[in-house]
Amino acid sequence: MGINSGPKVDPPYTNGTQTDGAKAKKPVHPLGPLSPEEISRSSKLLAQSWPEGTLFRFKSIVLREPTKAELLPYLEAEWSGKELPSIDRLSDVVYYIKNTDKLHEAIVNLTTGKVESNKLLGPFMHANGDGEEILAVEKILLADPDVQAEIAKLQLPEGTVVVSDPWIYGSDGIKNEKFFDDKRVMQCYLYMRDPNNSSEADSCHYAFPLPISPVVDTVTMKVIRIDVVATGLDEKVKPLEPWKPVPPNEYIPELNKLRTDLKPLQVVQPEGASFTVEKYAEMGDRLKWQKWDFKVGFNQREGMVLYDVHYDGRPLFYRLSLSDMAIPYADPRHPFHRKQAFDLGDAGAGLMANNLKLGCDCLGSIYYISGVVTDGNGQPVNMPNVICVHEQDMGILWKHTNYRTDRACVVRNRELVLQTILTVSNYEYILSFNFNLSGDLTYEVRATGILSTQPLDLELTKTPHPFGTVVHPGVLAAAHQHFFSLRVDPMVDGPTNQIVYDDAEAIPRDPVLNPHGTGYTVKRTPITRSGGYDLDVSRARTFKIINPEVKNPVNGASVGYKVHIPPMQTMLADSDSFHYKRAEFADKQVYVTKHADGELFAGGKYTNQSRGGTGVRSWAERKENVEKDPVLWVQFGINHVPRIEDFPVMPVETLKVMFRPVNFFDRNPAIDVPPSSQESNCSVGLNQAMDGMNLGGQNGELGACCANHTSS
Amino acid sequence: MGINSGPKVDPPYTNGTQTDGAKAKKPVHPLGPLSPEEISRSSKLLAQSWPEGTLFRFKSIVLREPTKAELLPYLEAEWSGKELPSIDRLSDVVYYIKNTDKLHEAIVNLTTGKVESNKLLGPFMHANGDGEEILAVEKILLADPDVQAEIAKLQLPEGTVVVSDPWIYGSDGIKNEKFFDDKRVMQCYLYMRDPNNSSEADSCHYAFPLPISPVVDTVTMKVIRIDVVATGLDEKVKPLEPWKPVPPNEYIPELNKLRTDLKPLQVVQPEGASFTVEKYAEMGDRLKWQKWDFKVGFNQREGMVLYDVHYDGRPLFYRLSLSDMAIPYADPRHPFHRKQAFDLGDAGAGLMANNLKLGCDCLGSIYYISGVVTDGNGQPVNMPNVICVHEQDMGILWKHTNYRTDRACVVRNRELVLQTILTVSNYEYILSFNFNLSGDLTYEVRATGILSTQPLDLELTKTPHPFGTVVHPGVLAAAHQHFFSLRVDPMVDGPTNQIVYDDAEAIPRDPVLNPHGTGYTVKRTPITRSGGYDLDVSRARTFKIINPEVKNPVNGASVGYKVHIPPMQTMLADSDSFHYKRAEFADKQVYVTKHADGELFAGGKYTNQSRGGTGVRSWAERKENVEKDPVLWVQFGINHVPRIEDFPVMPVETLKVMFRPVNFFDRNPAIDVPPSSQESNCSVGLNQAMDGMNLGGQNGELGACCANHTSS
Repeated sequence: MGINSGPKVDPPYTNGTQTDGAKAKKPVHPLGPLSPEEISRSSKLLAQSWPEGTLFRFKSIVLREPTKAELLPYLEAEWSGKELPSIDRLSDVVYYIKNTDKLHEAIVNLTTGKVESNKLLGPFMHANGDGEEILAVEKILLADPDVQAEIAKLQLPEGTVVVSDPWIYGSDGIKNEKFFDDKRVMQCYLYMRDPNNSSEADSCHYAFPLPISPVVDTVTMKVIRIDVVATGLDEKVKPLEPWKPVPPNEYIPELNKLRTDLKPLQVVQPEGASFTVEKYAEMGDRLKWQKWDFKVGFNQREGMVLYDVHYDGRPLFYRLSLSDMAIPYADPRHPFHRKQAFDLGDAGAGLMANNLKLGCDCLGSIYYISGVVTDGNGQPVNMPNVICVHEQDMGILWKHTNYRTDRACVVRNRELVLQTILTVSNYEYILSFNFNLSGDLTYEVRATGILSTQPLDLELTKTPHPFGTVVHPGVLAAAHQHFFSLRVDPMVDGPTNQIVYDDAEAIPRDPVLNPHGTGYTVKRTPITRSGGYDLDVSRARTFKIINPEVKNPVNGASVGYKVHIPPMQTMLADSDSFHYKRAEFADKQVYVTKHADGELFAGGKYTNQSRGGTGVRSWAERKENVEKDPVLWVQFGINHVPRIEDFPVMPVETLKVMFRPVNFFDRNPAIDVPPSSQESNCSVGLNQAMDGMNLGGQNGELGACCANHTSS
Repeated sequence: MGINSGPKVDPPYTNGTQTDGAKAKKPVHPLGPLSPEEISRSSKLLAQSWPEGTLFRFKSIVLREPTKAELLPYLEAEWSGKELPSIDRLSDVVYYIKNTDKLHEAIVNLTTGKVESNKLLGPFMHANGDGEEILAVEKILLADPDVQAEIAKLQLPEGTVVVSDPWIYGSDGIKNEKFFDDKRVMQCYLYMRDPNNSSEADSCHYAFPLPISPVVDTVTMKVIRIDVVATGLDEKVKPLEPWKPVPPNEYIPELNKLRTDLKPLQVVQPEGASFTVEKYAEMGDRLKWQKWDFKVGFNQREGMVLYDVHYDGRPLFYRLSLSDMAIPYADPRHPFHRKQAFDLGDAGAGLMANNLKLGCDCLGSIYYISGVVTDGNGQPVNMPNVICVHEQDMGILWKHTNYRTDRACVVRNRELVLQTILTVSNYEYILSFNFNLSGDLTYEVRATGILSTQPLDLELTKTPHPFGTVVHPGVLAAAHQHFFSLRVDPMVDGPTNQIVYDDAEAIPRDPVLNPHGTGYTVKRTPITRSGGYDLDVSRARTFKIINPEVKNPVNGASVGYKVHIPPMQTMLADSDSFHYKRAEFADKQVYVTKHADGELFAGGKYTNQSRGGTGVRSWAERKENVEKDPVLWVQFGINHVPRIEDFPVMPVETLKVMFRPVNFFDRNPAIDVPPSSQESNCSVGLNQAMDGMNLGGQNGELGACCANHTSS
């Protein structure tokens, strides 16, 4: 056995149990994100399947989740305490042969130690960008003599520091003798730091955009083209001119005069938090709070993922995650016409997740969840504190005063917040799942960060611009749309779910039934075929996830959850455009598809320089029967026409999608929440201090509060 | 002079200065709500204008606000510290000659002590209902032998307590030999307390609706008709049958098993609140917080009113208030077809305002504002603690991480909340103005309270109902729409304002300008004529208040504020219905009218049994030029198709209208907010405690937070 016979294979796993030699481990939960060891083992096994000496550039190594057919019985067994079926641990490995454009996709079985499949992808398939790459590209282009020669024409002040934001190269299908955009390339936009403060590494360079935009081939790592961008009101490109001085626009506190009259506001939980956390896997956390019970995973592409969400022991969601986003820009001029970011597909919500810090990103009593991703060598990279978990007060949840007795009952709302934040070069997204006390689950997106700016002729600063807003002298921020796609794999009281929508419509006048023309009713339409669906505010259209096989014990209605979706303007780019073809989710507020394992990403698995045809619109076109096992894709977004107030860093633009029980319970599920009480709130009345007045009530007359009736 | 010569007149006021005999007082601010003394003086002066012995039933005595022509110069003088012009104090007095339907409207000049006008109103004009009246009506009808005879047919259990919710009698124009609905009447709905707990005065009687509905003449205070309501699926009314037992559905805590695992969450401000309050009048408060500076008034009809709102010394709003609301119901069957409540016009947000109590309605460090209204005798009634003022954390306001230096700057948001709550018999509205750190002002409505229920045949409990939702055995909650109208009298950087809307629209494909079909632009439409206007989500239509005479110093755009309006389904009742005619604001999301003094209420001044023709739709039909001095009326609402989860008390349904600066500042106005810091947040990391792990960051590594850069 000392003799190496054939290809090396790691010791096999048995029944989902790792046995490294003798030492045995407990089975890994099938929904546990890959552990650091599993990541390195995946890349090792993959490498062993190739001839010795082959070099790799790994792009992503993530858990290949079990099929729903495998997993549902496992989860049912887990909830009923039965014996757990064994499920192999698999990983999805995406990699390049180093220094080539040969993109591969492999499935590694960590249980058997075998590579189950391994295929070369393409054409028109490119992996996401990553930090390593982006920093390398910036270095290369700034050192490039041709780029330097172009920059020289700007006659920048002595000592000016030029920086670059490499961007993904949105496809436009253009092919000519020297270039075809199937090449994996990056379009790089140039900026400079404040020349009067060049040593400040955090100077806001977006206030100093430059008209030069090199294109770098990410295989050869060479500059293959240098674009000069239009800086006027139309598409005309002028020869480069000497740079004209403009003031800086800094956001870092030491370069701003800060207000001094905002006093501290602290959240205190004297008895600690109301939630508990346990590890269901090395990299997976199970949270329990106020009848909610769910598993939290984290991966490179989606970041935070929720699994197996229950309320009071009843299943609600099989899987919930942000599936992708697309941000197409309004400026039709080359090279800006290609600006459409897919920040999950092109980069990764997990890969770009912030390390959240106490005192910075959350307030109160906070638990932090960490994750792990992979580097280019297929080794694990720890991502500390990528999710913060805390409770927040949400004001009054319900109140009623009986005017006859003047007794008021007031109950406050509370949310459990799971927040994660990603930074994709200039821009930030603050994403959270918020659970509340009345069975609502809200997905919240806060868009912030810095607008992607471009240069404008200084003399046009006060001229209205057709494609955007001037946010600083000589700085244009183009309008852009944000589209988010939330993937909802429902399990409302079990797997037999259906998507329906309800419309409120007037009843025609009728001498008997509607003699005064005031009547209206609600009409239900079940969605039977996969497809895209629109909201209709004029009909108060509401989409619902129902379980036709479970009826409300009181009123007999099918139990369900409704979805509050903020109405959005769909994509403005025309249907022949690459923007439209690539963002397969940006044309409909709702898509319904039949569940298919692996169909997780609304814009397709490989969005970088994609051509379309691989996302949710294409899947929906199968026109499958979705009366059983539907997946709901909720699209929402905004048209961001920049305000000058959005610069240098924009105040959050907030969007919420809300899931609310509808005939799921038999009454208000928050009736059992203890009433608001001064004993527990410990509020402070200011009237006495502020104006010597005491109008009563402010100094803790507990008799005034409903809660007191129970505490007596 | 000891001889009474002619009509008694109170000692005159001089230059807005009260001189009661010798003792002089300081001038009253023209926007100061009436003081208790001014209210009693108003009714006294009014009474003196009538023959001795005339008896009155006062309905409302409120400040008659000065005309804009008078007030603008006063406010300008106040802000510039110039000498203040003197403006007479006037009151609007609405009253009946006691025990008649003779409704009068008078203007009393408190400065001169003269009644300036006094006129009899009508026909089709009726004053609001009030608590005194509602309690009296309930008493009368329950004592009425005919009503008791009908109730007897229900054979209710021994000792059952029957209660009644008197409702306003929505007009339907029906006239017959014995009745014409120009009579001022109330339609009363009957309920009973849980017969097994009759002594519990706070038993939720809405779980026990009865099919009997008496109509009471509020002039004669007699029952003039007893309606029996349909309890099936159609309009057929069955003879009264013996009541069938159903279980109770109680909301008071001592009748529910309360959850015990929600731990206290407290808001602590160790250095106190960041706002200051000063009295600008006896009943008026001026608040200053984070560059915001505004006056808060309170009146019987609108409740909380904001005047003269400034930010950083720049005017934004002349006057802001909720103007009215309308809640039409879906059930077309008699008498339900008349259910359309105007809770401000028919009752009054001030009259029905809750007395907010510490520990109950707000959290943290709270200042309470009180108000005053009038009773039937024209005497002042104190309304303590009708507005609570406090600060709340709102999560992250802006964040950016420079990926090159990994430095994160995070700033948290904070709101100053002015909250008031009204109870209109079964239902509650929680209304607030929320000011934030980046110049946003949000108006928030939270709808809660108890659904207005009606009886349903017990055997139909599990049958879908065409007009609503079954929320309890034998209990139907009809669907209804909520329409709110927020009146916005703008003053963005001065009085020369204009309303415009911006649409985002695709640019047609063009080989030169838009070769890839990706371009779009924003088109502006100024509103020049008064009228009603729609949202258009498909064009991302955004309404803006701009000041064409003030340009942004950086980009030259007209300074402005945009309005985020939640899209709503407009009224479903047809345009010939009384619902539609009366709710003059429920058909358009935006109305723009030319400012006219006294045009404050979107549904007209007298909504009770109104016929229409006296509200914003009628004013808009004047088709006036609104390029100067426009008033903006923002409508929003929901179609409330009840969920069983909305009973017995519904979790809040929240709606927000947001005003955001757009090219009003020259950059993000919150860049000067100190970054989030552990020094001031004092957050608590739970990882160590919960799982012994310390992933770093959670235990106050201050270096991790942007703020630390400034504190070093």
